[in-house]
Amino acid sequence: MFNTRSKSRRAPQGFQPPQRGALPQGRAAAAHGWSSNSQLHPFTRKDENSRLFHYEQKVKQAFAEIEPTLRMLSAAQHEADFVGRAQALVKSELGLELPESLLVDSWIKPLDIGRLYAWCVFETFRQMSDEFFDTRPLADADDFEFQRFLEQCGFHTLDVSPCADGRLAHVIRYVLRLPYKAVRRKSYAGAMFDVEDSLQKWIETEMLRHREGSPNQAAVPTRYLKAAVYHHSSSKPESEGCAAHGSDTQKAAAAALAKLQAFRQSVENGFCCGASIDLLLIGMDTDNDVIRLHLPDANGEMDVDRYVDAIDLFNATRNSSGLDAEAAVKRYLEDMSLACGVSQPTAGMMRLSARLLCGNLSQIDYVRQYHGGCYSDIGHQERFIGMGIGFEEVQLRNLTYFAYLQTVEEGAKDMDVGIKIFTGLNARRGLPIPVVIRNDYHGQVPGARDRAEARCHQLDNALRNRFRDFADRGLLHTLLMVRDCQNDGMAEVVGSSLDLQQQEAH
Amino acid sequence: MFNTRSKSRRAPQGFQPPQRGALPQGRAAAAHGWSSNSQLHPFTRKDENSRLFHYEQKVKQAFAEIEPTLRMLSAAQHEADFVGRAQALVKSELGLELPESLLVDSWIKPLDIGRLYAWCVFETFRQMSDEFFDTRPLADADDFEFQRFLEQCGFHTLDVSPCADGRLAHVIRYVLRLPYKAVRRKSYAGAMFDVEDSLQKWIETEMLRHREGSPNQAAVPTRYLKAAVYHHSSSKPESEGCAAHGSDTQKAAAAALAKLQAFRQSVENGFCCGASIDLLLIGMDTDNDVIRLHLPDANGEMDVDRYVDAIDLFNATRNSSGLDAEAAVKRYLEDMSLACGVSQPTAGMMRLSARLLCGNLSQIDYVRQYHGGCYSDIGHQERFIGMGIGFEEVQLRNLTYFAYLQTVEEGAKDMDVGIKIFTGLNARRGLPIPVVIRNDYHGQVPGARDRAEARCHQLDNALRNRFRDFADRGLLHTLLMVRDCQNDGMAEVVGSSLDLQQQEAH
Repeated sequence: MFNTRSKSRRAPQGFQPPQRGALPQGRAAAAHGWSSNSQLHPFTRKDENSRLFHYEQKVKQAFAEIEPTLRMLSAAQHEADFVGRAQALVKSELGLELPESLLVDSWIKPLDIGRLYAWCVFETFRQMSDEFFDTRPLADADDFEFQRFLEQCGFHTLDVSPCADGRLAHVIRYVLRLPYKAVRRKSYAGAMFDVEDSLQKWIETEMLRHREGSPNQAAVPTRYLKAAVYHHSSSKPESEGCAAHGSDTQKAAAAALAKLQAFRQSVENGFCCGASIDLLLIGMDTDNDVIRLHLPDANGEMDVDRYVDAIDLFNATRNSSGLDAEAAVKRYLEDMSLACGVSQPTAGMMRLSARLLCGNLSQIDYVRQYHGGCYSDIGHQERFIGMGIGFEEVQLRNLTYFAYLQTVEEGAKDMDVGIKIFTGLNARRGLPIPVVIRNDYHGQVPGARDRAEARCHQLDNALRNRFRDFADRGLLHTLLMVRDCQNDGMAEVVGSSLDLQQQEAH
Repeated sequence: MFNTRSKSRRAPQGFQPPQRGALPQGRAAAAHGWSSNSQLHPFTRKDENSRLFHYEQKVKQAFAEIEPTLRMLSAAQHEADFVGRAQALVKSELGLELPESLLVDSWIKPLDIGRLYAWCVFETFRQMSDEFFDTRPLADADDFEFQRFLEQCGFHTLDVSPCADGRLAHVIRYVLRLPYKAVRRKSYAGAMFDVEDSLQKWIETEMLRHREGSPNQAAVPTRYLKAAVYHHSSSKPESEGCAAHGSDTQKAAAAALAKLQAFRQSVENGFCCGASIDLLLIGMDTDNDVIRLHLPDANGEMDVDRYVDAIDLFNATRNSSGLDAEAAVKRYLEDMSLACGVSQPTAGMMRLSARLLCGNLSQIDYVRQYHGGCYSDIGHQERFIGMGIGFEEVQLRNLTYFAYLQTVEEGAKDMDVGIKIFTGLNARRGLPIPVVIRNDYHGQVPGARDRAEARCHQLDNALRNRFRDFADRGLLHTLLMVRDCQNDGMAEVVGSSLDLQQQEAH
């Protein structure tokens, strides 16, 4: 209903109207005892939910319509005036203008649907990306407020490593309701982040605090906070959990906790003067975005089996006054700690945890309002793989499998999982796997753009080399992009396996 | 004459004495007007020269004898009691005990000389490495003195990127006579170091100064000094210069200077508060180890065409009193700057440059004394490729082609150059290319050893993948090692393509 664009469209004469690539509808609402009409939780931010859904619906619909539209094109490829009518259809359905070179020889040989598909995915992403940096649809007025809040809680940096799984790609902005600009996100298969890479980020952060007083002075007793987000599926725990951990929730949680502890130990043993960091482990049910927060104790220790389930909190507080949400959640957490006989975390960690859980309450209602309490696409439904460094504009669920990496060699495990997922989603059906390769750079550093571009090509070659059988069969296509993250501009296309003038259509 | 070990050896009965793998003898001494008997420069450290030569001779002789010994083994493989006599020969000639598995089936099929060769190279290196960390043959009592001196000159860190070429592997300890522990060395083909990697090291260094006051307090106005060393061959400039720059000296120098400037600009533009570094460009004649020092001007700027040639300095000061060498060299540099009409560098840069040049005077005499003024092996004569992070024990000329890298993907260019060199040296003659893969780690960080070991295997796979044709033909062998650089222990073998019990022989 938000997709107003498609309402006014009409299929060009002679074409069958496409099978609307309708978004998956919430299933089993009744089974969960929820419906979109039931009363919202008093802490739920209704307006924000509406704004987030409008954006999600619009973007995901654009991707969802690609395949039905191409099916129409395929059926009509031998009709008279095909090129003109194809362009009209694609314009009306997808809002895109195809490069002529993909169409003109359709009277000689069959349309190359694989290339058309990849082109449409890349172009849809490019438009989405441009719009994101242009209109800031998910901007949060509270970027600075959150940084101040974080520092009040005793942290100067929040660095989150979720699983690379696309069903967690919205964890920052949607599931936890955090401003994406104020949080570092680096995704790895199974949340198995690279300790050395995190260590380097810690070193850089501390250096900037000392040298430049950014984000705060080194003398302020705040710490770097590293969080890892693992996941599971409550409805299909055996098959729709984390692929990197064999869909074993316990294993996923324990592995993420071990990584966090290894990072902390690296800081503590590698540097003197009481160097340390704080840790937070979060689990997430990908069916309904309900989180489990493993509240640390007074010593910062967590337990895989000890967590606060946001759904319990949701139910326990649903009759609250709605006046001071975070205070109410904090009281709940304090009571929980007391009841478990576990020491309480620091006051700051308690405040932050309350805020994260409070944000999640809105998201629980979001899934209830717009997805019947449980996503229809509880399994993988990503549209493309994103690899490299960047992708600030990807904050939506099940759109992108995202692997943060500097080289395919180091990120091989992450890419193997991604390609396996997309073999099921695309390649097995004959559709290519679209991979967007991205490198953000700091524009004020001379040569940085060239190096980012060179790195894109290096990743492209390495990807093609590792998955040569896919590439050789035309089942792997790539789009190469760089972005100056310093001036906060748009991302730029610097290459593509499609070897077309990407800008031809504009 | 220093190789006393071989003097007392006798070939076992029935075996022909091996063609002694005599070290290349200095050639063209007369042509250079030098002889090992001519008088030494007054600034030359004669005792140090003798000690350095003793070590070089001993280690290089051990590698040089591998091939002649294996030729004998090959010739005798069908003789009676071959296994016992082969072991006796190898023990007496190489000081090694071969794994029986490499010998026992020689009556059924021909000896696998390639595997034997790789095993001997690896084992010789392992022994050399153990001895290096055990007896510290190149230790310099002045490690701390040099760090103090460096700080007095206005620098807290000296980070040198020479070309990966094995003819520069001795640049720190021999050519510049610096304590290897006090200098960072990261080698890249053509000295084309990775700016981002260097930037990370700069960040870490500044962080440690701020947090831990190491190596000095951040408030002390010293800077990070980055040096690059390019090279050329005065006797065969067209063919024996830098392979990465097409043996074009001008190009090699200009490219190294541009990299240095890019690094400085990255620091200046990427960080505020007047962040900057100092730079130094050095050229080296691989025929005779004579350096060219591109003395910066008062603004720290250098010119490819403006340099001090150490041989001019050598000649200009050969009649000095020998009392205060560095002061005399400093006067020479000041006069040179005046004569060129170029502003003088900072007093600290002047002092450091004088010290480096002064060290080089000893090396010029070293080559005169022991190599007739010009190495016989003016071309490549490396014995193995070293790749990864570490190799503190490799401080000898023409022993190792060394590529500093974290992944083969990023270091591909460096490895391509290395494999090309070894195709000429080994593969074309049917001998395998021995590659030692190394990762040093910080032992006090839990998990670091496991990660270093995993990284070795990752590099091994990537290498094999990139150079599959060599690996498939048995022309690529690897030895995997890790080392705890914190406790300054020995390197440990963690794997090998030879798939033998590496320790079997001990």
